[in-house]
Amino acid sequence: MSPAEDLLVSWSDTATRRRVVDFVASATRDGPGFVPPEERVAVFDNDGTLWCEKPMPIQLDFTLRRLAAMATDDPSLRDRQPWKASYERDVTWLGEAMVKHYRGDDSDLQLLMGASVQAFADLTVHAYAALVTDFFDHAHHPTLDRPYRSCAYQPMVELLRYLEANGFATYIASGGDRDFMRPVADELYGIPPERIIGSSLAIDYREDDDEGTDVLYKAEMEFFDDGPVKPVRIWSRLGRRPVVAMGNSNGDIPMLRFARHGDRPALRLLLLHDDPDREYDDTAGAEDALARAADRDWTVISMRDDWSRVFAD
Amino acid sequence: MSPAEDLLVSWSDTATRRRVVDFVASATRDGPGFVPPEERVAVFDNDGTLWCEKPMPIQLDFTLRRLAAMATDDPSLRDRQPWKASYERDVTWLGEAMVKHYRGDDSDLQLLMGASVQAFADLTVHAYAALVTDFFDHAHHPTLDRPYRSCAYQPMVELLRYLEANGFATYIASGGDRDFMRPVADELYGIPPERIIGSSLAIDYREDDDEGTDVLYKAEMEFFDDGPVKPVRIWSRLGRRPVVAMGNSNGDIPMLRFARHGDRPALRLLLLHDDPDREYDDTAGAEDALARAADRDWTVISMRDDWSRVFAD
Repeated sequence: MSPAEDLLVSWSDTATRRRVVDFVASATRDGPGFVPPEERVAVFDNDGTLWCEKPMPIQLDFTLRRLAAMATDDPSLRDRQPWKASYERDVTWLGEAMVKHYRGDDSDLQLLMGASVQAFADLTVHAYAALVTDFFDHAHHPTLDRPYRSCAYQPMVELLRYLEANGFATYIASGGDRDFMRPVADELYGIPPERIIGSSLAIDYREDDDEGTDVLYKAEMEFFDDGPVKPVRIWSRLGRRPVVAMGNSNGDIPMLRFARHGDRPALRLLLLHDDPDREYDDTAGAEDALARAADRDWTVISMRDDWSRVFAD
Repeated sequence: MSPAEDLLVSWSDTATRRRVVDFVASATRDGPGFVPPEERVAVFDNDGTLWCEKPMPIQLDFTLRRLAAMATDDPSLRDRQPWKASYERDVTWLGEAMVKHYRGDDSDLQLLMGASVQAFADLTVHAYAALVTDFFDHAHHPTLDRPYRSCAYQPMVELLRYLEANGFATYIASGGDRDFMRPVADELYGIPPERIIGSSLAIDYREDDDEGTDVLYKAEMEFFDDGPVKPVRIWSRLGRRPVVAMGNSNGDIPMLRFARHGDRPALRLLLLHDDPDREYDDTAGAEDALARAADRDWTVISMRDDWSRVFAD
């Protein structure tokens, strides 16, 4: 037993679970694997790692609803991607855009991102947060028959609490939009806004003639926090290297590689989506990450075999 | 008495101190001034607020030593600013560059920053941290007869601890370089790297063919975190508005303005350098901030009258 191991109730008693628990036990007791408390930093990708990202990322559904509303108002947009796919709710085109990105082809993603930044330009951060909260109050996953706010993986919530109980500071480091996660991440994962790192729109500061001030989005990206950008944003925010990192796709490889201190043991985790009955069996965009995991002895978590439960009831 | 008020031992019993204590007491007890614990965010400028910035910011001394070393190696640099001032140790030219900046003229600061980014380009973040630590191990303040690492204001360290004891999360939000503060801020102020916001050089991520990864500086600025950029960087890092903010110069006005939630009370603090015997009597670059403080009833802290001690022994 390591401290608080009983929090991991949705994890089956497998070799994977034992690797995780052994790492934490070693990091928290005197010996060669000891990690000083201030260096116990754990970073987690979000889409496909903490919550479901198939058939498309949740944020993409949010964005396409906004784009569809724009095309409803302006028929001239209905012939142009990505408004066309949004208006027609062409989930295939949209889901493929992400898979192409993970495979190195950003052409469709660029179209989407260009439209996304226009869709939210000039909104204050608070108005955007209200849109996000409203979306999560109403929107459902297209195939899993559950609200999006119930799409967090329960074993991951337990892993976050388990690490925190052992002195780790937990952070989300996602390619998804930082301010899309912030309004709901505390409720879904117990992670407050200041521990969320992600992609971001550029932000402007405005003041009025009296006491009023606000921050609002510009029509441009600031960071697209994926691939090699993840270690850069993690350093910028924390000034530390993580010792635990978990992801599920090729875009997480640099973050997982970055998570080590010299020769000290590190825990690199990769979630394998191999569970067609309870979620998806789909490794598109994760091929390189899985190959490196096999080559470097990273820990692959099988959703099917290692988790006794996927979602909370 | 408010909780932990006895931590403020270097503060004189003045109306200023009572305003600070009354705000904290009100924020932490039921009533109209109550601030929920998760919203108790306090942000502090660094140069001239937490440590001495006259006759020039400490970071500027660090940088000019680096530039002087470059001019020692390369005589052709000795006729060009800012290498000329660095090589000749022309403190006046360098100090004036900052005052001109606070007054809206960035010409000399641009020269300095251009040279600074060249001076540290291609260093890894760890190599840079080692240079900073070495500087603080040896360098002394030019007039105060004390090492730079003893130039933190003792009453400010007490204020940080007092706020934390009352459930506030404390952050540095400085125009100075984030990674120049990180190696020493824990020792000087008890503020860890992840709670430091500041200016930054752009960062690159590199990996080798095996397991090695590193992050290192590019020859360009990422953010110059002063003036209207401060609220933007604070939001980006925290996803929250502060309710306590403190600074000492015109560049802090937007941050102080940003520190409020609707009509809820906020604490905006401005340090007045009016103490020629123990530090400096110099408000250059703070004129607009002091005018706004008078106009809006922000709390001005007089170093001379409100602090019984300035530096720890």
